[in-house]
Amino acid sequence: MVKIGGSEGVDRAAVCTDIAAIVRGGQPVVVVHGGSHDTNQLCQRLGIPVRTITSPSGHTSRRTDAQTLQAFQMACRGIINQQLVTLLLGQGVNAVGLSGLDARLWQGERKGAVRAIENGVTVIIRDDYTGSVEQADPRLLSLLLDAGYTPVISPPAISTQGEAINVDADRAAARTAAAVRAETLVLLSNVPGVLERFPDESSLVSRVSRERVEEYVGLAQGRMKKKIMSAGEALRDGVSTVVIADARVPEPVRSALSGKGTRFE
Amino acid sequence: MVKIGGSEGVDRAAVCTDIAAIVRGGQPVVVVHGGSHDTNQLCQRLGIPVRTITSPSGHTSRRTDAQTLQAFQMACRGIINQQLVTLLLGQGVNAVGLSGLDARLWQGERKGAVRAIENGVTVIIRDDYTGSVEQADPRLLSLLLDAGYTPVISPPAISTQGEAINVDADRAAARTAAAVRAETLVLLSNVPGVLERFPDESSLVSRVSRERVEEYVGLAQGRMKKKIMSAGEALRDGVSTVVIADARVPEPVRSALSGKGTRFE
Repeated sequence: MVKIGGSEGVDRAAVCTDIAAIVRGGQPVVVVHGGSHDTNQLCQRLGIPVRTITSPSGHTSRRTDAQTLQAFQMACRGIINQQLVTLLLGQGVNAVGLSGLDARLWQGERKGAVRAIENGVTVIIRDDYTGSVEQADPRLLSLLLDAGYTPVISPPAISTQGEAINVDADRAAARTAAAVRAETLVLLSNVPGVLERFPDESSLVSRVSRERVEEYVGLAQGRMKKKIMSAGEALRDGVSTVVIADARVPEPVRSALSGKGTRFE
Repeated sequence: MVKIGGSEGVDRAAVCTDIAAIVRGGQPVVVVHGGSHDTNQLCQRLGIPVRTITSPSGHTSRRTDAQTLQAFQMACRGIINQQLVTLLLGQGVNAVGLSGLDARLWQGERKGAVRAIENGVTVIIRDDYTGSVEQADPRLLSLLLDAGYTPVISPPAISTQGEAINVDADRAAARTAAAVRAETLVLLSNVPGVLERFPDESSLVSRVSRERVEEYVGLAQGRMKKKIMSAGEALRDGVSTVVIADARVPEPVRSALSGKGTRFE
């Protein structure tokens, strides 16, 4: 299972070339991706304000009202997902694009009320379309993998009420890796891995034991916090190895599999 | 096989409710859709000019430069496709959204040079991403149908060079109906069928024999021309019945199957 980050600087063509080499070598791969940077760009073009919510516990997430959700779907599902499929097809991989909506692949609860800190005050937001994936259904993925297809999965997920919801793609990838009994989950983004002293790239942590995951969640900032949480959740649910690694290096996936980045075991 | 038109006035929820009743009754359905109206709206929001090309033989099509292609993908694949999937899921149908790119479902040639009439002069356009579906691959669709999923297919198609191309969804539906050996192809849009004297809805043609398809292609205007061509192509390729019918009536698919609209046999 390979999660390709949606941040700026990720070379999707290089990642797809690398994934194709692995698939051609006989190893099945499921691809998951996000789309934060492209969603921001599209929102800008459409005149939709890009806003962030900070929860009382310090987690940040995208403010996703109805029009932001639509831009998110257009960027993730309409553009990035199909770009990855096209790149993989060009490398001889029989890729099929899916979203978490399709056949209820990713299901979870939409948050009825989101608590957020605005100017130091806690406010309740009720028109937000966010949630988290509580159930990843392996059936469609197994059907496709067994027939030689490579699934490429995009947010959003679907709520139990049938609404599209913005979910964190790292955590969704962790759920999905466990559901399909993946051996390894590789989380690629535009950082070399977990850094002891962010943003000092020489302070890379090469290994995190299961026992110390919580500690690193506490230390990390922003997006990395959720990546480490995702790594912990994948391990807990039976995935043997999770690697948080750099998408910007040559052969990023094979490099992560051969020891680069931060390894959780 | 049901093709849902992308024009204004088509009630997608009603069409999906009707399709769900058919699927629940044990009849497998493949859904194909277009997205012309939504693409126009999105282009407007993004400040992309909506232009039409008229070929020397009088056919009209959307001028699809790179930025229009992207808007087309965002509207069709990002929004409409996933809206139809969500509506079908809500009715208990295990729907899976696909585009013609996925696993090279719809493959064809991109037109290298498009001849168009502009202000009475023939010009050659070289940066257009259009083509037509020459091959519909039934394998992924059969895999999904056999496992109880309902595929929902969106443009674009993929060129032999691996580029996304804008294709006519009616003609793609005809190719696909033949490829999966569908008994019946229903083409739904915002007209009651083929009209002898357009736009007089009382002049509905209820039946067109295979022999007279060409004649009606000649008589018809605009979008209807391609629908009738598609009907002829589907019959030629082995589909028993094609119905061009109204999406705006109650139970539009079952109504088409039970004799409404224009029937090609």
